[in-house]
Amino acid sequence: MSETYFALNPATGERLPGEYPIATQADVERACSLANSPSTWASLSDVATRAQKLRDAAAAIEALGDALIEMAHLESGLPVARLTGERARTCGQLRAFADHIESSGVLDSLSLPGNPNRAPLPLPSLRLEKHPIGVVAVFGASNFPLAFSVAGGDTASALAAGCPVVVKVHPLHPGTSEMVFGALASAFGDAVQRVHGGAEVGEWLVTDLNVAAVGFTGSQRAGLALFRLGANRPEPIPVFAEMGSVNPVFALPPGQTESNAAGYVASLTLGAGQFCTNPGLLVGVDSPGFSAFVAEISRLVSTSGEATMLSAGIAAAYEAGLCRLSSAEGVRLLAEGPQARLYSATPSEGAELFEEVFGPCGVVVTCRDEAEMLEFAGSMPGQLTATLLGATAGHSLVPVLKRRVGRVVFDGFPTGVEVSPAMVHGGPFPATTDSRFTSVGMTAIERWLRPVCVQNEPSEVD
Amino acid sequence: MSETYFALNPATGERLPGEYPIATQADVERACSLANSPSTWASLSDVATRAQKLRDAAAAIEALGDALIEMAHLESGLPVARLTGERARTCGQLRAFADHIESSGVLDSLSLPGNPNRAPLPLPSLRLEKHPIGVVAVFGASNFPLAFSVAGGDTASALAAGCPVVVKVHPLHPGTSEMVFGALASAFGDAVQRVHGGAEVGEWLVTDLNVAAVGFTGSQRAGLALFRLGANRPEPIPVFAEMGSVNPVFALPPGQTESNAAGYVASLTLGAGQFCTNPGLLVGVDSPGFSAFVAEISRLVSTSGEATMLSAGIAAAYEAGLCRLSSAEGVRLLAEGPQARLYSATPSEGAELFEEVFGPCGVVVTCRDEAEMLEFAGSMPGQLTATLLGATAGHSLVPVLKRRVGRVVFDGFPTGVEVSPAMVHGGPFPATTDSRFTSVGMTAIERWLRPVCVQNEPSEVD
Repeated sequence: MSETYFALNPATGERLPGEYPIATQADVERACSLANSPSTWASLSDVATRAQKLRDAAAAIEALGDALIEMAHLESGLPVARLTGERARTCGQLRAFADHIESSGVLDSLSLPGNPNRAPLPLPSLRLEKHPIGVVAVFGASNFPLAFSVAGGDTASALAAGCPVVVKVHPLHPGTSEMVFGALASAFGDAVQRVHGGAEVGEWLVTDLNVAAVGFTGSQRAGLALFRLGANRPEPIPVFAEMGSVNPVFALPPGQTESNAAGYVASLTLGAGQFCTNPGLLVGVDSPGFSAFVAEISRLVSTSGEATMLSAGIAAAYEAGLCRLSSAEGVRLLAEGPQARLYSATPSEGAELFEEVFGPCGVVVTCRDEAEMLEFAGSMPGQLTATLLGATAGHSLVPVLKRRVGRVVFDGFPTGVEVSPAMVHGGPFPATTDSRFTSVGMTAIERWLRPVCVQNEPSEVD
Repeated sequence: MSETYFALNPATGERLPGEYPIATQADVERACSLANSPSTWASLSDVATRAQKLRDAAAAIEALGDALIEMAHLESGLPVARLTGERARTCGQLRAFADHIESSGVLDSLSLPGNPNRAPLPLPSLRLEKHPIGVVAVFGASNFPLAFSVAGGDTASALAAGCPVVVKVHPLHPGTSEMVFGALASAFGDAVQRVHGGAEVGEWLVTDLNVAAVGFTGSQRAGLALFRLGANRPEPIPVFAEMGSVNPVFALPPGQTESNAAGYVASLTLGAGQFCTNPGLLVGVDSPGFSAFVAEISRLVSTSGEATMLSAGIAAAYEAGLCRLSSAEGVRLLAEGPQARLYSATPSEGAELFEEVFGPCGVVVTCRDEAEMLEFAGSMPGQLTATLLGATAGHSLVPVLKRRVGRVVFDGFPTGVEVSPAMVHGGPFPATTDSRFTSVGMTAIERWLRPVCVQNEPSEVD
């Protein structure tokens, strides 16, 4: 008899129906071995078939109907409207990857003819092909029970690349995961596998010999641990971990408007602040204008609403983060809502400012002058995003930020990550473990592709 | 006073003129800090200027004339003709990367317009840009004092990407390295730096906070150690290490020709076998034809010539490798030249067969039947190349090999790696530390580029 676990309703703390088996190491090995079998590889080998399976999976998820949304709402506490949007994103993403592999040329070979007359040696013909890297282990995220979970972006991009997938279900939404997994498996069969469990199950997965690469979205602690586990295996494998960041917003005088104040607070408190791209820092230069802007933001934070957090554990971690900030010497509370908090600080707080508090918590960083703001920007650890309010394209912050972040947003807010061929949801460490890749958008597929050169292949027309 | 070292002439064992300073940790820090200064970044920011510098560097290396070839010959023992070709490859590579960044579109942005009318939310404009990853540390290889050294493929691709470079000179050819470095620095100034020293200097370099990525060509032991060092830094960085392999050649009956026997031995003994792509394994199915093929190869190995190895240490390691093979139970000596050796074995020798013996040493693996050959191919650790002699494009070995190698060669030999947009000089571990990249060919630049998305940038025409 294997151990089991269950989900709690984060709104009530009550146990939800359903029991889920915690995987043993043998279960993990079996799932990975099944995923890596010749028959699953064969089932993924044809691009058109793969694209159709991605579309079939999207349709099967939609066919789950309201029951899926209800389950995800019960398990995550996220509002039905948000989950409905997230389902659309999830299915849209599966279809976008289907289109991408069929139409964008991303999987096309590059064929270069040879030249037998080249001196001093003949030039052989060369063809560069794109091949799937191998079985991809995907770690579902707590904060997106659909779009960054069983059939989320990591899974969709890996399957699009032709890689079988083994998902570690996030234990906060096992029921949702089982429903989505059923839909996914109806299209992909054994080429998709899922296991339930905690950190130990994750470690077995990352060290399994049948696993060739890992996609992870979550905390810095867990992401870095898995990255190191992958790198230190006898046969090292790449672990792409997206570990969040504080996503600073730089408010220049022309951007210190009432509508941007409202926009900032809306982005900060969206989904109880539980987004990787939550704008946790607001940076400006000391001035009456910036003070007025911050005063308006403070007012809006005080009157902001409340939402259920994903779990009691995440709510407790949020409270602990607030405590840590409150007790920092140079940090003081500016405004307090039922859930949201706004603090003030100066750049001299340093590293403290860049520790993400997962939830609707903002810190206003007031710089003496533009030079200090530039220096602050240059000192930032890697971030998923940085936002500029009221800056021209040529502002001196822009090149500094491009060195430190994956996405620079002008006159908008970082939450709401478009699924696009031009998106980057990545960035220098510690935002991710590899700044050369993204986990959202069509180029997310590049994490799972490796090149193979075929030299001097004989023609078959003999 | 810093410690110094000197080079030995591998042909005579005599000390060569010239003394080179072994870097202290402070020297390494200074080099990396200089490489990462705002002025070096500014000097590399414009693509056309960078391309011109690459061309200037090529011209400056050529302007060193015969003196460079003489120095490289003295330090490496490699023949003048080979070094002349290697210089052409090195300069051609610098120019090819200049053309590549100007004409191929590899650094182009992808701009997608926004749509203010999209429902439910407006679509922002998005632009995907390619940015240099940061300072790249390059480790010169022992076996290519020009083409995989100070101004070799790693350096050329990194500079083409816009990354400053710090080279760790290979201690077997310091004089050659200083000459090439002078030429390179005449074009690139402080954006290129070099340090001399051994393993300790390499470790300081990989752990320096100003270094963002590493390119290495060399042994599995050293490459893996540096890879792990990079992954285990507080801020992990990617280390692309190309660590060689045994490059199996599968000889099918139609390929068991006299000319292929000669081609195999020529490839095996080329440059005293000191190539990453040296074909150390010859695999076939037991048959009179294969026996005759192997007999011809044995004859050619017995009558093959001799060449100076790169160093006394490499020659000693070669001898040790031969001893290891000779003493393996199922391995026996088939043929012996003054330097080259040919052994026979069966697939049951397993892992032993895949330990590279750096030098002109081949092992003939005789399989019972095609099924055993297929199984053997599927069991191979990752390889840079695999070669098929006499196979059709549709042979059952082809898909198996594509899973295990970076390049599949038909009816040719793996030595001689074209610098081409379709080349892959890479492969699954242990051939390299990351199967998604190559160190030769134009796509080598992708190791040093990271994407940055610019969202909703205001137009400057206000």
